[in-house]
Amino acid sequence: MIASQRPGPSIAQIHITPIAVTDPPLLNAAGIHAPFALRTIVELVTEDGISGISEIPGSALIDQALKMAGDLILGKDPFQMNLIRDELRQHFGSDQRRGDAPWDQRKLVHVFSAIEVACLDIVGKVVNRPVCDLLGGKRRDQVPYAAYLFYKQEGAGGEHGFGKDDSARGWAEARQVGALDPAGVIKQAGSMCESFGFKSIKLKGGAFPPWEELEAVKALFDHFTEMPIRFDPNAAWSLDTATEIGKEMEKYLEYLEDPVRGQENMALLRKRLNVPLATNMCTTSFADLPSSIALGSEDIILSDHHFWGGLQASMQLSAFCEVFGRKLSMHSNSHLGISLAAMTHLGAALPEVPFALDTHYPWQSEEIIEGGRFQFEEGSLNVPSGPGLGVELDRPSLERLNQNYLQCGIKERDDEAEMQKLDPQWKFEKTRW
Amino acid sequence: MIASQRPGPSIAQIHITPIAVTDPPLLNAAGIHAPFALRTIVELVTEDGISGISEIPGSALIDQALKMAGDLILGKDPFQMNLIRDELRQHFGSDQRRGDAPWDQRKLVHVFSAIEVACLDIVGKVVNRPVCDLLGGKRRDQVPYAAYLFYKQEGAGGEHGFGKDDSARGWAEARQVGALDPAGVIKQAGSMCESFGFKSIKLKGGAFPPWEELEAVKALFDHFTEMPIRFDPNAAWSLDTATEIGKEMEKYLEYLEDPVRGQENMALLRKRLNVPLATNMCTTSFADLPSSIALGSEDIILSDHHFWGGLQASMQLSAFCEVFGRKLSMHSNSHLGISLAAMTHLGAALPEVPFALDTHYPWQSEEIIEGGRFQFEEGSLNVPSGPGLGVELDRPSLERLNQNYLQCGIKERDDEAEMQKLDPQWKFEKTRW
Repeated sequence: MIASQRPGPSIAQIHITPIAVTDPPLLNAAGIHAPFALRTIVELVTEDGISGISEIPGSALIDQALKMAGDLILGKDPFQMNLIRDELRQHFGSDQRRGDAPWDQRKLVHVFSAIEVACLDIVGKVVNRPVCDLLGGKRRDQVPYAAYLFYKQEGAGGEHGFGKDDSARGWAEARQVGALDPAGVIKQAGSMCESFGFKSIKLKGGAFPPWEELEAVKALFDHFTEMPIRFDPNAAWSLDTATEIGKEMEKYLEYLEDPVRGQENMALLRKRLNVPLATNMCTTSFADLPSSIALGSEDIILSDHHFWGGLQASMQLSAFCEVFGRKLSMHSNSHLGISLAAMTHLGAALPEVPFALDTHYPWQSEEIIEGGRFQFEEGSLNVPSGPGLGVELDRPSLERLNQNYLQCGIKERDDEAEMQKLDPQWKFEKTRW
Repeated sequence: MIASQRPGPSIAQIHITPIAVTDPPLLNAAGIHAPFALRTIVELVTEDGISGISEIPGSALIDQALKMAGDLILGKDPFQMNLIRDELRQHFGSDQRRGDAPWDQRKLVHVFSAIEVACLDIVGKVVNRPVCDLLGGKRRDQVPYAAYLFYKQEGAGGEHGFGKDDSARGWAEARQVGALDPAGVIKQAGSMCESFGFKSIKLKGGAFPPWEELEAVKALFDHFTEMPIRFDPNAAWSLDTATEIGKEMEKYLEYLEDPVRGQENMALLRKRLNVPLATNMCTTSFADLPSSIALGSEDIILSDHHFWGGLQASMQLSAFCEVFGRKLSMHSNSHLGISLAAMTHLGAALPEVPFALDTHYPWQSEEIIEGGRFQFEEGSLNVPSGPGLGVELDRPSLERLNQNYLQCGIKERDDEAEMQKLDPQWKFEKTRW
């Protein structure tokens, strides 16, 4: 039995625009960020001219999948998200598990997420309500984010390092500075927190030997005495290393993110350490939940609506977390304001926000939404109040960043290749230490 | 941080109307249905006069809780269901587990459900969409229901046995007939299936010794060779009895519902029998899910939006079922058309409807919605297409059934007391055989 369509707005156009966004040389377990991060902007337009937008991590593969998805959803009613999801699932099949990299490349959840968020944007505009009201309504007016620190090389990414509309001028300069040791990390943290008012700190590790990174965590703890601190080596540690370093690190941390690879190792480590473990690498899909529950692999799931199949699926994930005693917080990749708006609507609707959410946003300087970049207040964002996502495309900026994409030559994220430009011998290792 | 209210329709009135609905003398493990079943009709009216309605199982206790809830939600925006739920939960606290009876009396989930469905009805009218579109959209146009058979005494409930607008005249007479043995059950099934076109059969047991009820199941199997058949003794059996009878019964059944009491017993039995086990008694809340998963207590959860906290919570439950390999179907109590409309919208939006849903609806003859009673076609209902639930209150009928309530003297369901009018020695036993 196929449901008949109720007359309603139908999707008449789909525009898929890959963009390349200036990104600083940030270090991580997989290498170093290239001068450009890829995002893909999706715009759905109904026959009566209502536009819905979304933003997802970009790659040639995902763009191709989106193009196929576009053919499937033309003529569909954006209210009918169940049917759209069924049809996409039927076409793309279920995703295999995510790969070894710290980022995620699964097709189906990315495509779902892109289309669902754009549909929610349209529905919000049709019913004159913000997207959070389509998730059961806003539970808070401000959504807190964390200072996301990186070890980094000098520079802020190509020659496009400064966004002209970046109000945090001090940070725009500080963003260029390298940070390769505890002193550099402390300086970066001070500048970022001062500029944005963040009240929590996350340090991305996995770039240097664990004992060196432990020193940076300890320095942050000693220096920012009021701030909860988290650390994430992207599963670059063996279970033995994680046990040893974790025992030292646990007293400094709010939580420890993905110290080891795989649910089994996480579950073993969790029994040995006295610090909550968080993940966006070992429990990354609904299919991972049964083994997560059986093993007890983490305390905190760092959701990402781009990887979990959209905002409604993220609300469902929060229900799982509530039932099974997990906390939910949010993961991020390099992104712009459309993703940030979606994350903020979700953050407003979630039953609780026990930890400030991750965002790479301060590392980007460009924007593609009207009015320029989001302004943080005391580390939080006000939930956009306009209908839908509450943000609109700035088309000249979109065009400019699409030109960046066409010219930069990058077709998928490859932090290893980028690192090899600095050190030809460097190789990604799933477990380095 | 408390979220500020976006200007929107606000709830200006709440009307709580207890009604008593004619009910036939149906037998079950807890006794026999009284001549009236209690329901409570909730109507929320916004300041601009938009009405949203819902229907839940009634009792003096629930009505009192609804009155308190009404004070809490006056002035609230019906879009803000997250905040409304948070506030009610804060006020009522978490429900304890459901009791021993085959029906459910928990306050919080009933109150949630009543208010959420009425809010969804309002939101649907505001945005001019059916409720199923607020659950992600309709996946099917027709929702299949099952013939719900009962052992019963002669009679159709007081003198109000015939609904004047009951189109199934043959059934209106057949509904009066007693059914106390396999032959009676077969006759009832034939008449009900002929009148409504049902394609699946459920027999409520727990009224007679298991071997007698086994004979009825066997007779149904032999007589209705094309029909899937289910059986539900409401946990009146011991594990030993259920093992013995279940072994005999398994070859006749699509599934066996609540043969034994408690998740542990269900899990043990499930390993012994070769038939799916269903429940609406051992896994009845989100809090029950972790032990359900750990024990493996059932194959099928029979949800009931009145007991699981509403339609959106039921969609969440379906996500749990998908992840943990359960099937979801639907439980029912004696009810009228508002509940049936809500069940049908949910049935339209669910990812799958692997079994025809339970409904007591043919056992009722009255109605309180405009246009009279729902008409089944080939055992299915068309999903209402109007905005919201797609049904409106028939106020004279509501008034009449409220008068029934005021006059009938029943304040809560008590099938044991009713049975004792026939047999003063009769006592409810949690495990009778």
